[in-house]
Amino acid sequence: MKENVELVFEICVVIPKREAILKGDEDFDCGNVFARELKNAGLVVDRVIGNSDEFFKVAAPLETLGRAAAELRIMKRTHIGMDLQFDMVEVDAFVKQPDGSLFSWYERFQCYCHLMHGIVNNSKSSRILKFNRREIRWEVGEHLLPKLESEIIIKQIFPLHDDKIRKKLLKTWALQWWDFTTQPVDEIYAYYGSKIAIYFAFLGMYTQWLLFPAVVGLIVYFIDYGSANLVVLPAFFIAVILWAIMFSQFWKRKNAALLARWPITYGNAVDEEYKVVGMKGNAQPRQNPMDLIKLLEADRVKGKKVFTKYEWFNHLLRIRNDALIIISIICLQLPFELAYAHLYEVLNKDIIKFGLTAIYLATIQYITKLGGKVSVKLIMFEHNENPETRADSLVYKVFGLYFMQTYIGIFYHALLHRNFGTLRKVLIQRLLISEVVQNLIETSLPYINYNYKKYAVRQNKEKEEKGSAGTFQFTSRVEKEFLKASYTASTGEELEDGLFDDFLELALQFGMILMFACAFPPAFAMSALNNIMEIRTDALKLLAMMKRPVPRASATVGAWLNIFQFLILMSICTNCALLAWLFDEEGKWKIEPGLVVILIMEHALLLIKFGFSRLVPAEPAWVRAARAKNSSQARDMYTKRLLRTISGGEKTRELKKIE
Amino acid sequence: MKENVELVFEICVVIPKREAILKGDEDFDCGNVFARELKNAGLVVDRVIGNSDEFFKVAAPLETLGRAAAELRIMKRTHIGMDLQFDMVEVDAFVKQPDGSLFSWYERFQCYCHLMHGIVNNSKSSRILKFNRREIRWEVGEHLLPKLESEIIIKQIFPLHDDKIRKKLLKTWALQWWDFTTQPVDEIYAYYGSKIAIYFAFLGMYTQWLLFPAVVGLIVYFIDYGSANLVVLPAFFIAVILWAIMFSQFWKRKNAALLARWPITYGNAVDEEYKVVGMKGNAQPRQNPMDLIKLLEADRVKGKKVFTKYEWFNHLLRIRNDALIIISIICLQLPFELAYAHLYEVLNKDIIKFGLTAIYLATIQYITKLGGKVSVKLIMFEHNENPETRADSLVYKVFGLYFMQTYIGIFYHALLHRNFGTLRKVLIQRLLISEVVQNLIETSLPYINYNYKKYAVRQNKEKEEKGSAGTFQFTSRVEKEFLKASYTASTGEELEDGLFDDFLELALQFGMILMFACAFPPAFAMSALNNIMEIRTDALKLLAMMKRPVPRASATVGAWLNIFQFLILMSICTNCALLAWLFDEEGKWKIEPGLVVILIMEHALLLIKFGFSRLVPAEPAWVRAARAKNSSQARDMYTKRLLRTISGGEKTRELKKIE
Repeated sequence: MKENVELVFEICVVIPKREAILKGDEDFDCGNVFARELKNAGLVVDRVIGNSDEFFKVAAPLETLGRAAAELRIMKRTHIGMDLQFDMVEVDAFVKQPDGSLFSWYERFQCYCHLMHGIVNNSKSSRILKFNRREIRWEVGEHLLPKLESEIIIKQIFPLHDDKIRKKLLKTWALQWWDFTTQPVDEIYAYYGSKIAIYFAFLGMYTQWLLFPAVVGLIVYFIDYGSANLVVLPAFFIAVILWAIMFSQFWKRKNAALLARWPITYGNAVDEEYKVVGMKGNAQPRQNPMDLIKLLEADRVKGKKVFTKYEWFNHLLRIRNDALIIISIICLQLPFELAYAHLYEVLNKDIIKFGLTAIYLATIQYITKLGGKVSVKLIMFEHNENPETRADSLVYKVFGLYFMQTYIGIFYHALLHRNFGTLRKVLIQRLLISEVVQNLIETSLPYINYNYKKYAVRQNKEKEEKGSAGTFQFTSRVEKEFLKASYTASTGEELEDGLFDDFLELALQFGMILMFACAFPPAFAMSALNNIMEIRTDALKLLAMMKRPVPRASATVGAWLNIFQFLILMSICTNCALLAWLFDEEGKWKIEPGLVVILIMEHALLLIKFGFSRLVPAEPAWVRAARAKNSSQARDMYTKRLLRTISGGEKTRELKKIE
Repeated sequence: MKENVELVFEICVVIPKREAILKGDEDFDCGNVFARELKNAGLVVDRVIGNSDEFFKVAAPLETLGRAAAELRIMKRTHIGMDLQFDMVEVDAFVKQPDGSLFSWYERFQCYCHLMHGIVNNSKSSRILKFNRREIRWEVGEHLLPKLESEIIIKQIFPLHDDKIRKKLLKTWALQWWDFTTQPVDEIYAYYGSKIAIYFAFLGMYTQWLLFPAVVGLIVYFIDYGSANLVVLPAFFIAVILWAIMFSQFWKRKNAALLARWPITYGNAVDEEYKVVGMKGNAQPRQNPMDLIKLLEADRVKGKKVFTKYEWFNHLLRIRNDALIIISIICLQLPFELAYAHLYEVLNKDIIKFGLTAIYLATIQYITKLGGKVSVKLIMFEHNENPETRADSLVYKVFGLYFMQTYIGIFYHALLHRNFGTLRKVLIQRLLISEVVQNLIETSLPYINYNYKKYAVRQNKEKEEKGSAGTFQFTSRVEKEFLKASYTASTGEELEDGLFDDFLELALQFGMILMFACAFPPAFAMSALNNIMEIRTDALKLLAMMKRPVPRASATVGAWLNIFQFLILMSICTNCALLAWLFDEEGKWKIEPGLVVILIMEHALLLIKFGFSRLVPAEPAWVRAARAKNSSQARDMYTKRLLRTISGGEKTRELKKIE
C-alpha cells in the first residue's frame, strides 16, 4: 500500500444483499468470511452495498501481484530478450510495460484469478458459512470461489473499469471525431489488453487504406469512359486486388511493429494455461502432452513415434471436424439458401416476398446458433494448444456458415442469373441498410438493455420501500457497471468474446466489396464511410456501454487474417468470372481472345498473391534490427556472467550424475 | 597438443618449391617465415615437399581454435537455448556437436581463416622475405596472407580431406550400393558441413518419394483402360500434384527434424560475416547497417524512417535487378529458343538439324556463362544480409535462364504445335540420354582432369630429372589432393559451389517430369532410377574425385525449395492445358463441360497447394516440444542466478546513468 498509493480496484465480485445479520453471526456471514479471506490473500477489498446486491471491489498491491505471478510461474521478458519465470526479488531483470508498470493487464488479471481461486479452507475442520438462513459447509481443503459459485451466492465476477483512464480514453479516442487516423493504441493496449488494441489498430489501418479504392471506385463508376469502358473495369479490378494483397501483407508488418512495442510473452499461455482458471471457470481439463515429452526424453526413437502419432491424431481429428462442418454446410445450408434466393427471384407479390424474408431471417438465426453450438462441441474434442487456437478453430468453422449465408444469394444473382441489376440492388441493400442498422443495433441494444435493467432495479427497490419518497438514486458507480452488458460473442460464447462479431462484420464487408468489385465499384466508398463511423461506435461501446472485457492473451488478428487472404483469393476468381460474363454478351462461352486474356490475368494475379509475401517480408527491418540490438547489447553485457552461471550449473549437474 | 592427441591437419597452403636456400638466408625464406608465423599463431604445421610445390599442412589444437572463436566473437548455442559469444573459460556452457566435438566443421574453418588472416607484421620495422631471388618487403602492420597471395607466392589454400573419416564414409555411404534409403547424414554433416548434408538428405528423400509416382506412372502408361482412359489421366495428374505438394511440405518437416539434431547458430553469419574473410578473400566490403541501428537508438522516430527507407531501397534494387534479368530473358533468350525450336520443327534434313543443334549448344553455353556473370555483377550491388542470401539471389536469377533454355522448346512442341509425338521424344531424350551423359561427364571430367594434371606433373618432373631412372612416384597424399578438382559451380562461382549444379539438375528434372506428367507418365520411373544412381555418384565425386569443399553456413535447401514450389504451381497449369488440349480433339476451344471441369480442377488444386502448408505445420510437434523442454528445463535450473545476473547488471547500468 505504501509503494503504490493509487491502488485501483480492478475486479468486482457480486453477492446478493443479505438480510440483517444477527449479532454473533458476523463471523459466519459468507460476505464477511469472503472479505476476510481476500484480505488474507493480500488483496485490498472495498465493500459497496448497492440496492439489491453487495459489491466487493478488489485491488492488489504490487507485492501481492508479484507473489501470485511467481506462484503462477509466469514467464516474463527479461532485458536479455529471453523469457524467464517471474521472481519478485529480481524485479529489475524484467522489461517494463510501455506505461511503466511491471505487469500488463492480462498478467494482472491472471494474478487476480489465481489469488481468488487460491482461497482454500486451511483450517483443520470444516467451517460454516451463513447466507441469509442457509448454512453452507466449507470443507477442509475446498476452494471457496467455486463453492460459492455453485451455491449461487457469487452472482458474477467481472473486471472493473478504471474511471480515470476510461474518461481519458473517451476524450482522446472515442470522441475524437475529426481525426480518425490516429488512435492511442498503446493506451488501449494498457487498458484493454493486446487483442482489443490489435483489433482497433487493424480497423484503423483498414479504414485508412480503404480511402484509396473508395476514391478510385467513385471515379470509375461516375465517369463515362465511352469505348475505353472495356479496359477501365479490368484495370480497376487489378488495382483493387493488388491493393488487397498489399494491405494484407502490410498489416503483418504493422502488427510486427506493434508487437515490438509491447513486451508480450507467448509461451506463457501455452505452458501455464491449464493452471490458470478463467474468470468463469471455462478451463476444461485437457490432456496435456507432458508425459509425451517425458517419453521423448527417455527413449528418443520411440518417443518421436508416439509424438508423431499424437500430432497426426490431433490433425486428423481437426480435419474430420472441419470436413463435418463443411459437408453439413454444403448439404444442409446451401440448398436452403439457394431455395430462398430462387423463391425470391421467382415470386412476384411483395407481401409474399416480405413474409418469405421474415421466415428466412428467423430460420437463419436459429441455424447460426445451432452451428455455433455444434462447432463448440466439436472443438472441445480437439486438442488445441491454448484458448486462442481454440477460438481460431471456432472462427474458421462459424465463418463458413456466415460465408454461405451472406454470399450465396449474391452469387446466385451474379453468376447463375447474370442479373446485374438485382446484384447491385442486393449489394447496396446489404452495405448501406444492413450495416447502418447493424451499427445502430450494436450500440443501442446494450444501451436499452442497460436502461431496462436500471429500471427493473429501481422498480424493485421502490416496491420494497413503498413508504419512502420516490427519490431513488444509484448510490454507486459499481452497481451501474454491474448492470451494463458484458462483451460477449453472438455465437460460441464459450470460446470467443465480442471481438468475434466485430471482426465478422469487417470480414463480411471486405468479402462483399472485394468479391463483387467489378459489379459495383462505389461499394468501397460506402464501406469507408461506414468504417469511419465504426471506429467511434466500437470505441464508445467498449468505453461507455459495456463492462470492461476480460483480457485475452493473443496479439494478432489470428484466424481472421487467413480469412481475409481467402477472400482475396475468392475475389480474384469471382471478379474474373464477372468480367467474363460481362463481356460475353452473346452467351457463347467461347474461348475468345477476351476470355484467354481474363484467364491469363487471373493466373498472373494468383501468382502475385502468393509471391508477394516473399517480396515484402512480414517484419520490418527496423523491428528485427532493434530486437537483435537490444538483446545482443544486453547479452554482451552479461555474457561472462551468464556463461559462468550455465557452465557452473553444468558442473553441478555432472557432479550429481557422478554421485 | 596434450589434450587432443589425434590432431588432424585440415587446411593446406601451397607455395611453389624454392631453389636451394643459401645458408644464412633461412630466416628470410618466405616459406620458413610463414611456417614460423603460423606456429606463433598457435597452429601446428606439417611441411611436405612435393614434386614442384611445398605443402604446409595446418592443424589447430583446441585451445587455439577456442581463442580464435572468442576473437571472432562466434555465437554458440548454450544449454539454456540461447546463443552467446563463445568464451574458452566457460566451455561447459556450450552445446557440443553430435559427434562430441566442440566446434562444427564450419566453425573450425572460420577459425582457421581468422588465425591465418590475422598474421600481421608486429615488429617495429618492415621485414624482408625472400622467394627464390625475389625480395619482398613485409611492411609494419601488413597482413601476410593477402601479401603472399598478391605476390602469387601462395598458389592455393584448400581444406584437406581427413583420410580416416573419408574411408569410413566411402564404406558406409558411397559404396553402400544396395540400401539407397539410408545415408549417414549426421556423419556427412560432421565432415562436410550442413549445406552438403542437407543436399544429400533432400536427394535421398526425393528419391524415396519418387518410387510412388514411378510405379503409378508405369501402371498408367502400360495398361490400356479402354473407355476409362478419359478418367485415368486426370486422376494420375491429381495424384502426382498432391504427391508433389505433400513432398515439399514434408521436406520442410524433415529439414526441421535434421536441424533439431545439429546445434547451428544462424545469427552468427549475419552479424559477424564481414569480419570473417573467406578462403579466397571473396568477402566484399559491404555497407553495414550498424550506424543505422545507432541512429534508431538515438532517435526512434527518425531512425525508423531512415531504416524503412534503407529497407525499401534494397528491395527496389533487388526488384529492379530481377526485373532486368526477367526482361532480358524474355526479350533476348525467348526469341532465340523459339527460333531454334521452330527451325528444328521445320527443317527436314538430318544433317542440317545436327548442325543447327551444334550451333545452338555452343551459343547456349556462351549465353549461360554471360547470364551468370551479369547476375553476379547485379547481385554485388544488392545489400544482401549474408553470403547465403546472395547465393539464393543468384540461384533465382540463373534458374530463370535455365528454365527458359530447358522448357521453352518442350512448351513449343506441347502447347503450340500440339505435337505429342515430338513432345514424348524430346522428354525421353532429355531424361534418359542427357541425364546419363551428364552423370558420366560429372564424374569422369574431374577424374580425367585429375589424371591429366598428375601426368603433367610427372612429365615435368621427368624432364627435370632426365638422368634418373623412370621410377617416378607421388610421395605424398597431399600432392595428389592438390591436383584434384575443386567443388565449384559451372556459373557464378563467386557465390556458389558445386551444389548449384547438383541442385539445378534435380530442379530441372523435377520440372520436366512434373510439368509434362500427363504427356509421359513413365518419366517418373526414369528419374527414380537416375536418382538412385545420382546419390552414389555424387557421394563418390565428393569423397574421391574432389578436394574437400569449403563448408557453408546455411542449413536449408534455400532458394531451391521455392523453385520446386514454383514448378509445382507451373505444373498445375501446364498439365491442365495439356489435358484440355488432349481432350479437345476437334480444336473448337469451346467451354464445354470438360473444360469447365478442368478449370475447376485447376482452381481446386491451386487452393490445396496453398492451403496445405496451413494444414501440415512445417515443424514436427516433437521438435518443438523437445526444444521447448530442453531450454525450459535448463532455464528453470538457472532462473534464479540468471535473474540475479541481469538485474544486477541493470542496477550498475542505472548507476552509470546517474553518474
